[in-house]
Parts: sequence; structure tokens; C-alpha cells
Amino acid sequence: MRQVDTLIFAGWVIPVEPEGLVLEQHAVAVQNGQIVDILPADQAAQQFSAQNTHHLPHHALIPGLINAHTHAAMTLLRGFADDLPLMEWLQNHIWPAEQKWVSPEFVADGTRLAIAEMLQSGITYFNDMYFFPDQTANVAAEMGIRSCIGLIIIDFPSAWAKDSSEYFKKAEKIYQHYQGHNLVRTAFAPHAPYSVCEESLKEVVKRAEINQIPIHIHLHETAFEVQQYFEKHQMSPLDHLDQLGMVSEKLLAVHATQLTQQNQELIKKRNANIIHCPESNLKLASGFCPVNELLNLEINVALGTDGAASNDDLDMLGEMKTAALLAKGVSGNPAALPAAKTLTMATLNGAKALQIQDVTGSLKIGKSADLVAVDMQHFATQPLYNPLTQLVYSSSRGQVTDVWVAGKQLLKSRILTSLDVLELQDKINHWAAKIAS
Amino acid sequence: MRQVDTLIFAGWVIPVEPEGLVLEQHAVAVQNGQIVDILPADQAAQQFSAQNTHHLPHHALIPGLINAHTHAAMTLLRGFADDLPLMEWLQNHIWPAEQKWVSPEFVADGTRLAIAEMLQSGITYFNDMYFFPDQTANVAAEMGIRSCIGLIIIDFPSAWAKDSSEYFKKAEKIYQHYQGHNLVRTAFAPHAPYSVCEESLKEVVKRAEINQIPIHIHLHETAFEVQQYFEKHQMSPLDHLDQLGMVSEKLLAVHATQLTQQNQELIKKRNANIIHCPESNLKLASGFCPVNELLNLEINVALGTDGAASNDDLDMLGEMKTAALLAKGVSGNPAALPAAKTLTMATLNGAKALQIQDVTGSLKIGKSADLVAVDMQHFATQPLYNPLTQLVYSSSRGQVTDVWVAGKQLLKSRILTSLDVLELQDKINHWAAKIAS
Repeated sequence: MRQVDTLIFAGWVIPVEPEGLVLEQHAVAVQNGQIVDILPADQAAQQFSAQNTHHLPHHALIPGLINAHTHAAMTLLRGFADDLPLMEWLQNHIWPAEQKWVSPEFVADGTRLAIAEMLQSGITYFNDMYFFPDQTANVAAEMGIRSCIGLIIIDFPSAWAKDSSEYFKKAEKIYQHYQGHNLVRTAFAPHAPYSVCEESLKEVVKRAEINQIPIHIHLHETAFEVQQYFEKHQMSPLDHLDQLGMVSEKLLAVHATQLTQQNQELIKKRNANIIHCPESNLKLASGFCPVNELLNLEINVALGTDGAASNDDLDMLGEMKTAALLAKGVSGNPAALPAAKTLTMATLNGAKALQIQDVTGSLKIGKSADLVAVDMQHFATQPLYNPLTQLVYSSSRGQVTDVWVAGKQLLKSRILTSLDVLELQDKINHWAAKIAS
Repeated sequence: MRQVDTLIFAGWVIPVEPEGLVLEQHAVAVQNGQIVDILPADQAAQQFSAQNTHHLPHHALIPGLINAHTHAAMTLLRGFADDLPLMEWLQNHIWPAEQKWVSPEFVADGTRLAIAEMLQSGITYFNDMYFFPDQTANVAAEMGIRSCIGLIIIDFPSAWAKDSSEYFKKAEKIYQHYQGHNLVRTAFAPHAPYSVCEESLKEVVKRAEINQIPIHIHLHETAFEVQQYFEKHQMSPLDHLDQLGMVSEKLLAVHATQLTQQNQELIKKRNANIIHCPESNLKLASGFCPVNELLNLEINVALGTDGAASNDDLDMLGEMKTAALLAKGVSGNPAALPAAKTLTMATLNGAKALQIQDVTGSLKIGKSADLVAVDMQHFATQPLYNPLTQLVYSSSRGQVTDVWVAGKQLLKSRILTSLDVLELQDKINHWAAKIAS
């Protein structure tokens, strides 16, 4: 008998690699935070003895979901303003609220709420972009979730930094601080081509190359943005970024609802990554990301929720369903974006985009034990003919019962283990009262 | 002190009439299954004493959701076949399975599962269309949910009826049996213009007029269907139905993804109702119902989930979010289909379409106590600036805690009261094993 830390028996193990595989009655063995074996339940019972054994006969065990685009702290502005034209929403509601309230405490508490919500819905890794990224990183590390913290660069002064020089200085400091950290990685996060000057964009390219970290940017979110950029620069934002050397396998281009054939071919040629945020794009009426075409070109497409002010939840199970349904509706093909591919988008493709696929994104011996158990015995997923399609089309976040990150259990029978929920609720009430007043 | 059966105090009461109103700290008083008062909590505490008092300080209390298009028994085929082209899905998977398995027991057990799932997600009324509607009606009445049972008419022989004459005979019998029933109503449910001959359609119009019941039909679901119909009849299905006198305030036209300007004007002129099923239309890539245009014409649009084989859940909270988001995306207007209007579609508009708005669809003195409590203290709906928008954009079915139909509590702190869940699970397992084999 081999001794391990944790042994999880599940009705179904869905490793994501290879895509579409569902292993019935299997177990995952975990030692020192890593997956050391995935094997049939009866063999596992013979070969392993564990400090913690979990029996989840009605559950699907999947890799932790990767939320590839968030503004975590914006949970504190969830429901603050809805159903408004984009510019009225931004200029008259969201930006003034941010200007008034964004502070280290706002970011820390908003991130706490976001992580609580994300863990409850099976997200083990999020890729963030916001002010005070030092706070985001700190809270994420403290709560034990895996994160990629965006080192934000934007031309406007904020409570976080007064000018480009300060944005870069603070970025470098956070990058240095978290180098080699077990859970926290960093990426450069220039906000968007229209909000970051050419000089800063060039600096981002240079430093991302030196530090060997990804670049996370909003790109081609709306037709209006692309058209305005054309008028000013006589080229698309994507082509401009390419001129500056930013379009590479390091790039995470978020939204991408406006992509010409030539844009798509360039993305393919450069091995850049697209982060699809279907619910945010729908809610803000930004347009439709051509997911089906991108996948046909074998471009790496990952999935994100965007911030809670424009979605309005951080729920990757819901986002998967929306992505799969929308791709069919938009392409006119009910066979487009099948369930297995959708789950890959929500896991492995996110890991690939963030260049961490050696660590997470699928269940494989040697990868981190980033695991999520989903109870499939809810009536909404019964009868269960196909755990994989029914995970995508029928399950909801309330069915997520247990979550592990690097082998540590952060959600245990629906209870968050790394957070005092009453204390968090007090903090939320405090902010809600202040902000609503 | 006035004695009532039930008094429910809620953090927020959302009556739907008038649209958009949110009453803070209110109570609903229920006597003999009817709402007898809606008033501020402090006044309620002084004026009423009740046999059952519920304190739900963190909950929104809303009218029961109305699922205006289902094939309830098809829950037993949920997840049976996905991600396939429409005709392959229907002809090679769904129809053969139905031919093999549909029986009185299949319909009774499938309906039981559907109702369990619907009650758990806050649905108090469903409008069904399937074979063996006598079974559907019987199970619905037994479980205490409100229903409109479709008296199915189709040109093909089935286990339910061998020919048109038998379909009509059985329809009449069910109609007679449930006349004046407290919870069960009936509607004629001719399957679709392409699957029911002209003679039978005329007969439906005649009998629906005599019996004074609605007519529930699939209409203009796909472009292919409309095009084929044109080739055969030199007119659209809608125009043909109008020639036969079927397009009236009694008509519930389901799907309607293909509507010309002239079609829309006819629907408006005749006061007919549209039942929008956004998730089914997306999954089967049927097209987009022009909801925004229909609402601008002040046409009554209600919401349905369709059957679980093509959705794949019976979750009106999820359907509301999809409807609201999709309307914005398709119209290119982030202010389209705001949250308050979406909730009206999922409640009052369904009641109007089914001509039962005097009984249910909103919280009003004299209407039935069809009530749903949604716990808004889940982190996904925090902070809570606007219970109505956050109900539509952020809540999920797991937050539904309590459901009453005609004053009777059918879901109590998430527990189904009118069903043995273990017995149902056994039945599901039995069917799943048979059907999968």
C-alpha cells in the first residue's frame, strides 16, 4: 500500500486530456499537492491508503475551472447599474463610482467576495486586471486560490498610480515580489490599445519579454472602438499591436468580437490567445466573438466571466453553457462548440493561454491537484446519460460541493474553508451601505 | 388582529404589477389559498396573526414563475443526445427513443421529475404539450403544481392515439374531466402546421372556441420549416393558420424565430401571444426570436424552457438571464429587454397568454398565492443594490428556497413536500438503465 495525502473516489472523473474522455468509477490520488495517480476505483482501493479519503459516488470530478478574464474587485459594484447604453453605464455610473471608492480596502474586500463566489462555483484559477493588484495578489494567496495578477498599465491617473512611470514601477515591484510563488503569477495588463499610449505598449512588450510573463489586454471589444481607432491610426488595434511586437503566444486578447478574416489569420500566425466572455459581450451588446471560426483555425480560445459589474456573476458553469449555446446560435450549426470542447475552453485552454499548462488545466499525473467535484444527482442533471454534456448543459453552480487547489481543500461540502463568511458579509454590508448612499 | 392561514415577511416583495416595483420589508397575507393583503412588515405584524408565519429577511418574494412551453416527460431523455445537427438529433435519436419508450408510465415518471425540478427552481405553473396528457395532468394535480395540459393533436399515430379521430376523442375526455379544476386547465396543442392537416387544424379552432381554451402550437421555429411550407402551400404557416381562424388572442405561438414585418403586424393585429424559448432556439441553432421588435409592437411575449432534451434544464431563472442577455446582443442595444420586463415575461405575460391572469402571474390581492422565495444573501447576489435586476442577472436556481402554489407550500427550505424524492430517484434510475441499454 502506498501512502498518499488524499484519495478521491468519484462516480466519474473527467480529465479533459484527452478531450471527451469520461472515466467511470475512478479515483485520483494526491501527494504534496500533486496528482500522483488516476486509476480505477477498485485498483485505487488496493494500492493506496490516504490520510483523507473522499467518496463521491454521485459526483463528476473535473479539473478546476479557469476564469481567464476578471476584474475581481468589481464584485462590489455588482447590480450597481444595469440595462443602460454602454457609454452612459461607464461614464455616468461605473467610472464615477470607481473614482470615488477604489482604494486598497475596496480591492481587498471586493476580491475576497469574488474569490468566495468563484470557489463556490468551481473556479480554481483566475486571471485578473484591476487597480491595486498588490491587494488582489495578497488576498488570493491568503485564500489559497491560484491566480494570475494583472500588472495594470493605463494612461489615466488613479488612486493606484499617478502616471505611466509609477504604473511600471509598481508593476515591477509586484512582479519581483511574486516571482516563484506557488500560487500567484503575474501578467502585464495594459488596459486596451485606446487607453495606453504607444510608448507604454512598447515598454510592456519589452518587459514581458524580459520577465517572461503573459500580456492581458482588452481588444476589439466593440465595433465603435475599432472604427474610432481606424480613424485615428489608419489601422486596426490588432494590427497596431502587431507592429509593436505584442501579438505573440504571450498575448491574451480579451473579447475580440470584431475580427476580420485577416485579423483571425494574424492571430493564428502569431499563436496568440483569445479570451471569450460571452455573457459580458451579450449584456453590453458588444457583438459576437466568432468562436466557431477561431476554433476551426485552431486558435486557442479560453473563457472568462469578465467583472461582476457587467455579467453579473463569476460563474464558469453558467458561462460554459452560454458559450456553447451562443456558438451554435451565431454559427447556425447545432453541432458547433460541443460540450467537450467547451469544457476544454474553460480549463486547459485557459492554462495554455496563461502558459501554465504544465501545472494545471487538466487531470494528469504530475499536475497540481486543482480539482472540483460536482454533484450530478440533482434532479436537473437526472437521468445521467452523459456526465460531460450534462455538466455543460444542465448543471449549475449550486451543484459544486468540493474544491481543491494544489491539494488543499478550499470548499468542503459547500463550506468555504479559507474564509470567515460572516466577517466577509459584514464587510460587504459596510461597502454596500457606503456606495449606495 | 385578523387571523389568516399564512403570513410571509420578506426582505423584498416584487409584485410584478406594477412592473419594476420593489417593496422593501413587506409581508404577504394568505387565506384560503389567496393573497388577502400585501403591506409593510410593521403593519402586517400589528394587523395579522397567522397559523404559519415565515420570516425571510434576506429573500425576495416573487410571483411563481410560469414556464409557458414544456414537454415535461422528456426530462427522461435529458442528455440522451447532444451537439448534433437538428434532423440527425430528431430522426436518429429522439424520435426512435420516443417510439420505443413513450408509455403512460414514461410520461408519469418523466413528468414527476420535471415537476420536482421546476418546483426547485421556482416554477409554479407550466404549459405542457406531450403524449398521454392524462398522465401529465394526473401527476401535476397530485403534486399540487398549477398546469395547463396540452391536448395534443398530431397526424402521426402514437402509443397515445392511432388517428385524428382518437386524438380528438381523448382530448375531449381530458377537457371534460378537468373542467373547473382548481389547478389543472387544458389547451389544445396541435403540434405544428407541418404535422397537423388542415382539417384537424380547423377542428381545433372550432373546439377551442366552444370550450373557450387556448391553442398551443410550435410555429416558425426554423427557416427551413417556413421555406418548405411556402413551397408546399404558397404561404407562410402563420398566414395559413390565420386563414383557418387560428390566429387570435387564444393562440400561443411557440418559438417564432422567423417573423417578417408583416408576420409581426398580423400577430399584433390579432392579439396573439408569442412564447420565446431562447435556450432551445440557441441549442438547436433555430434562429433568434425578434423579442425586442415584438415588445416594441406591444405584443405579449412569454417565456418557456422547452423540453429538457433540447435545453437541457427546466430553469426559468436561467432562461430569464439568457433572454435578457440575448435580446441585448441580437438587437445591439444594451438597454433592450431590461430586467423588470424580463421578469414580467416570465410571470404575468405567461398568465396573460394562458388567459389566467385573473388567477396568477403577479402578486395582487385576490390572486392565488403562487409565491416563490429566493435567498439573495448568496455571495453571487451580494452586495444587493437592486433585488430585481440581481434576481434576473445574478441569481441561480439553488437560491430558490420556498415555493407555494395556491397557498400550499410545495418547497420548504429547499425540501420538496409533495414527493418522495428517494422513490423518484429509483424510478429515474430504472428508466435510465432501460433507455441507455
